[in-house]
Amino acid sequence: MRLLHTADWHIGRRLHGFDLTAEQEHAFKQIEAIALEAKVDGVIIAGDLYDRSLPSEQAVALLNDMIQRLNLHDQLPIYAISGNHDSAIRLATGAPWYQATNYYLATELAQAFEPIELTDIQIFLLPYFETFQAQQYFNDPAIKNVAAAMARIVTRMKTKFDADKRQILVAHFFADGSATTDSETQLKVGGLGAIPVNLLQDFDYVALGHLHGKDALHADNARYSGSPVKFSLSEAHQQKGVWLIDTADMSRTFKPLTPINDVVQLTDNFANLTDPDYYGQLKCDDYLGITLTDTKPIVNVLARLREIYPNIISLERAQGYTTQVAMQTLDLAHKSPLDLLNDFYEHVAKEDLTEQQKQWAAAALKQANEVQQS
Amino acid sequence: MRLLHTADWHIGRRLHGFDLTAEQEHAFKQIEAIALEAKVDGVIIAGDLYDRSLPSEQAVALLNDMIQRLNLHDQLPIYAISGNHDSAIRLATGAPWYQATNYYLATELAQAFEPIELTDIQIFLLPYFETFQAQQYFNDPAIKNVAAAMARIVTRMKTKFDADKRQILVAHFFADGSATTDSETQLKVGGLGAIPVNLLQDFDYVALGHLHGKDALHADNARYSGSPVKFSLSEAHQQKGVWLIDTADMSRTFKPLTPINDVVQLTDNFANLTDPDYYGQLKCDDYLGITLTDTKPIVNVLARLREIYPNIISLERAQGYTTQVAMQTLDLAHKSPLDLLNDFYEHVAKEDLTEQQKQWAAAALKQANEVQQS
Repeated sequence: MRLLHTADWHIGRRLHGFDLTAEQEHAFKQIEAIALEAKVDGVIIAGDLYDRSLPSEQAVALLNDMIQRLNLHDQLPIYAISGNHDSAIRLATGAPWYQATNYYLATELAQAFEPIELTDIQIFLLPYFETFQAQQYFNDPAIKNVAAAMARIVTRMKTKFDADKRQILVAHFFADGSATTDSETQLKVGGLGAIPVNLLQDFDYVALGHLHGKDALHADNARYSGSPVKFSLSEAHQQKGVWLIDTADMSRTFKPLTPINDVVQLTDNFANLTDPDYYGQLKCDDYLGITLTDTKPIVNVLARLREIYPNIISLERAQGYTTQVAMQTLDLAHKSPLDLLNDFYEHVAKEDLTEQQKQWAAAALKQANEVQQS
Repeated sequence: MRLLHTADWHIGRRLHGFDLTAEQEHAFKQIEAIALEAKVDGVIIAGDLYDRSLPSEQAVALLNDMIQRLNLHDQLPIYAISGNHDSAIRLATGAPWYQATNYYLATELAQAFEPIELTDIQIFLLPYFETFQAQQYFNDPAIKNVAAAMARIVTRMKTKFDADKRQILVAHFFADGSATTDSETQLKVGGLGAIPVNLLQDFDYVALGHLHGKDALHADNARYSGSPVKFSLSEAHQQKGVWLIDTADMSRTFKPLTPINDVVQLTDNFANLTDPDYYGQLKCDDYLGITLTDTKPIVNVLARLREIYPNIISLERAQGYTTQVAMQTLDLAHKSPLDLLNDFYEHVAKEDLTEQQKQWAAAALKQANEVQQS
């Protein structure tokens, strides 16, 4: 059999205020095309279908359309679980009806122990869970973290293993040894914690969701698919895509997805960035994180850059111009206004005021004093 | 065929802060029992399944359980529409799958023109709609109100009429001539407006939702079922229940539902209300709207009544003690504090201060003045 493994759709997500609906639809159409062209026997969605537990009406309509398209129109089986961003209860609406068309959606821990039996494989759907849910399910308060819970879960799953079939696990958690990016909820802090990869060794393939890059984990038998769309600047370097898994030999192939507008990190000075010969070579409506290497103040810098690059999602200074204006511990009261201005300029621009600048500043100060005294 | 007609479940609704979950479950179990005992061929739910467009997780879980119970466990067909309190988009989740088990859920106007064809009847499911939706559907901005829209809708529906069958319409609107209570959203003001009953004359039965009392409309062929639970004090007098419709002769029978705690209006004086011989005759944990006939102030009146009646939802004075302290137009500045106090007391208690009360008041005023000057 051949399965497509995707995850972390985060329908409804925005990127620094920009609506990603078109990107998400664009990625979905590619996923659908890959599934149909590869004649897959099913699509795995390993959690975080929605970006939030209370998705907007627009997000609900969009995900409903996508799932109906795959399952009802294309007649592709779907194997899905809820992730930490989904409301398991809301997502479960309609689930008992979906199985009639081979759309399997697990949102409760108890469902993890009833594998879906296919010709040569068993698929275990383990939704995102928290430690207290495992404690309740096993009626054992001694389960103190998700790793301990996962050990118990795997032990119980193994009682359902059919020796004549391969076992596939669909899950949504942080696997020990994975690398994170900014756009993933950091579950390590007070949340899910990490699951040691060796707990997964009894499965022929573990289709993971939660981390947004396909390279977050390298284990022989476990992979994150990553999200289909880049959701933060820290994902700029990632190649998004989906996995195709052939269960005959458990081989896997990564199928890349391309965005409409990419998320890109640009580092250069203002003169270059505003030079037509420079930006003529770029796709200016990408979602850009720009790092300016200039050291001097630039008036209206963001507005001027936006005239060329409409989708700037972040603007920083390489030398930390905007963020590292440290508090001085000098005796400010004993310095003249002109000296203070010079200190400030030197701090941010890494050079002294020129004589011309000092004259302008002195004239401005004189005028300000006259206004104050009049 | 035999159909059960209910509506306005408003799952998730609260009554003056009191959780109605137990009441709604209790009513549901009676509806289910009536449906099974009468061996109905289907259950009509004429809109407002939820109380709000963004129902809580608890409400979602409760409605999901109810629908699964009726349709999957009891194998009863369901004919449902969205009401003005529902989010049509959210409610529609899963709808394309539901038809496989004869759960028909219409949330869009376009669905109203594809009747469900049963042996001897056609069921038209018309979800709640607003004028602009009819304008869009018919591509006719000349449709200026819902009455005009409904005329167009009925005309189109009639093209689908099968002369060998009876026609049943399920709809959610304010039918002209209906009486409202406090707990229904007043759609007349800037909302749905009213639909003249004569527009409904071509249907053998119109199963209506929106108004919460079964007696809100008396037409030969149209009825509100009312809500299964009382949702406001203005519904205290209503007998809640559901209709059973026999399509052979279009006869109908009203089947009453009983609450756990009723909503009751009590009008009496404080002495009686706190007399064990009096309240021993009452079901004290009903949801009570109490109107006190006393004219004098009663210290801690609500707390004292709640010791006997835990579920008071409103407390008023028959003479308007709490609500009708009108602004005086007298020249207050020229009256002594004692005169002002006497005026106030006379206004609310309908009698003058006694000599003893005046002495107490004078002493208190003297003391207050001394404190102020010290």
